[in-house]
Amino acid sequence: MGKQYTAAMIVIGNEILSGRTQDLNINYVAKKLVECGVVLAEVRIIPDVESVIISTIGELYEKVDYIFTSGGIGPTHDDITAASVAKAFDVVLEEHPEARSLLLEHYGENDLSAARLRMARIPVGAELIPNPVSVAPGFIIENTHVMAGVPRIMQAMMDHVACTLKGGAVIQSHTVSCTLTESVIAKELTAIQDDWKHVDIGSYPYFKDGVLGVNIVLRSSVESDLVQAAGDVSDMVEGLIGT
Amino acid sequence: MGKQYTAAMIVIGNEILSGRTQDLNINYVAKKLVECGVVLAEVRIIPDVESVIISTIGELYEKVDYIFTSGGIGPTHDDITAASVAKAFDVVLEEHPEARSLLLEHYGENDLSAARLRMARIPVGAELIPNPVSVAPGFIIENTHVMAGVPRIMQAMMDHVACTLKGGAVIQSHTVSCTLTESVIAKELTAIQDDWKHVDIGSYPYFKDGVLGVNIVLRSSVESDLVQAAGDVSDMVEGLIGT
Repeated sequence: MGKQYTAAMIVIGNEILSGRTQDLNINYVAKKLVECGVVLAEVRIIPDVESVIISTIGELYEKVDYIFTSGGIGPTHDDITAASVAKAFDVVLEEHPEARSLLLEHYGENDLSAARLRMARIPVGAELIPNPVSVAPGFIIENTHVMAGVPRIMQAMMDHVACTLKGGAVIQSHTVSCTLTESVIAKELTAIQDDWKHVDIGSYPYFKDGVLGVNIVLRSSVESDLVQAAGDVSDMVEGLIGT
Repeated sequence: MGKQYTAAMIVIGNEILSGRTQDLNINYVAKKLVECGVVLAEVRIIPDVESVIISTIGELYEKVDYIFTSGGIGPTHDDITAASVAKAFDVVLEEHPEARSLLLEHYGENDLSAARLRMARIPVGAELIPNPVSVAPGFIIENTHVMAGVPRIMQAMMDHVACTLKGGAVIQSHTVSCTLTESVIAKELTAIQDDWKHVDIGSYPYFKDGVLGVNIVLRSSVESDLVQAAGDVSDMVEGLIGT
């Protein structure tokens, strides 16, 4: 198996930590990374505090191949992500000519306020990420992809950067659903996991329409292993239901 | 102002990191902590990997007053949270007599399989957290509250522990909604934030039924400050709409 590329996501937002907003961005990024063959190794949700943003990027920079952030790149006083990322990478935050002209074209000369112009301030050396929804761009500096927090915009930015990522073998998954409980399958499932070291097997109980059951999810980058392990799980389930 | 109590949450689950499951537990814990006057300082989503669970608890243990975990306490091979937490606190994992009798009463002697009995294994010295949904308990060891991942169970466990937490002054919030954009309010909002240091002011753009707007959320433990700052924000909004 080749190199496994890894990523971390940093959600920057007091509104998530206070419970005011239900985050939807993590799940979108997680799914997109699976498609790209990149493993999401960790997610952190942190407040809009400069020192925390800087130290979190510093820690994760060493640990993963890619960092993705969402939130804090709007025009108001609490939007401090761009300035914090610039400090994390020890570069200056400057008005980016292309970002300025995008904003100018969108708002017109009269409505390009100082607040809106703040959104053109990008760490020097960063590459812009287009924003097809409301123009103000995200950016990429080294391995760090800085995106908006508003889900529609974040999704467009993630779609854009996803195709540029260098990924490893794509992880495929196969799900076996049954109305057995976790306790009933646990022993035999452990034996199957022991047989298939390159297949990650997880079991997720559910309760739907009054019925208890479990989804057994197998994941692997080795398709033949995945198919055979899934066969073993199906045989086990049939055996247990038959008894 | 008195001591500000802080918390961190650790979501343990490959199913969240792979995008298979949309997390709902973070938002529930976040809201409950606000009610208790405890500030959620950070959330980490990590995989079901023993060394990562141990190091994450180690890092956060020093930083916050309370740790909450969700996920990984079921009966299958991938449920390694209890064993990992025991190692993190350097204590033995043992069958807990009370947990055993709860499971015995629920399942009956014949159906209390080895897999189910795994759920009675609790770090020595920990206190049980009742599970009114499916019996298998969570537990509290030192400052760390270990809860289930299934939302209905996690919520019941969180409700139980919430009333035992020592919190600071409860943070109150007040929201001013308007159909202005962030760019338009940014300058004056910065001035209001500068005036009210003990009020945390955030602005959250929305797009609903074809209309762009912004929710301005003020939070403070000092009610008089909150009321006056909210008055300033309302005045600002009325002034800007009037012009």
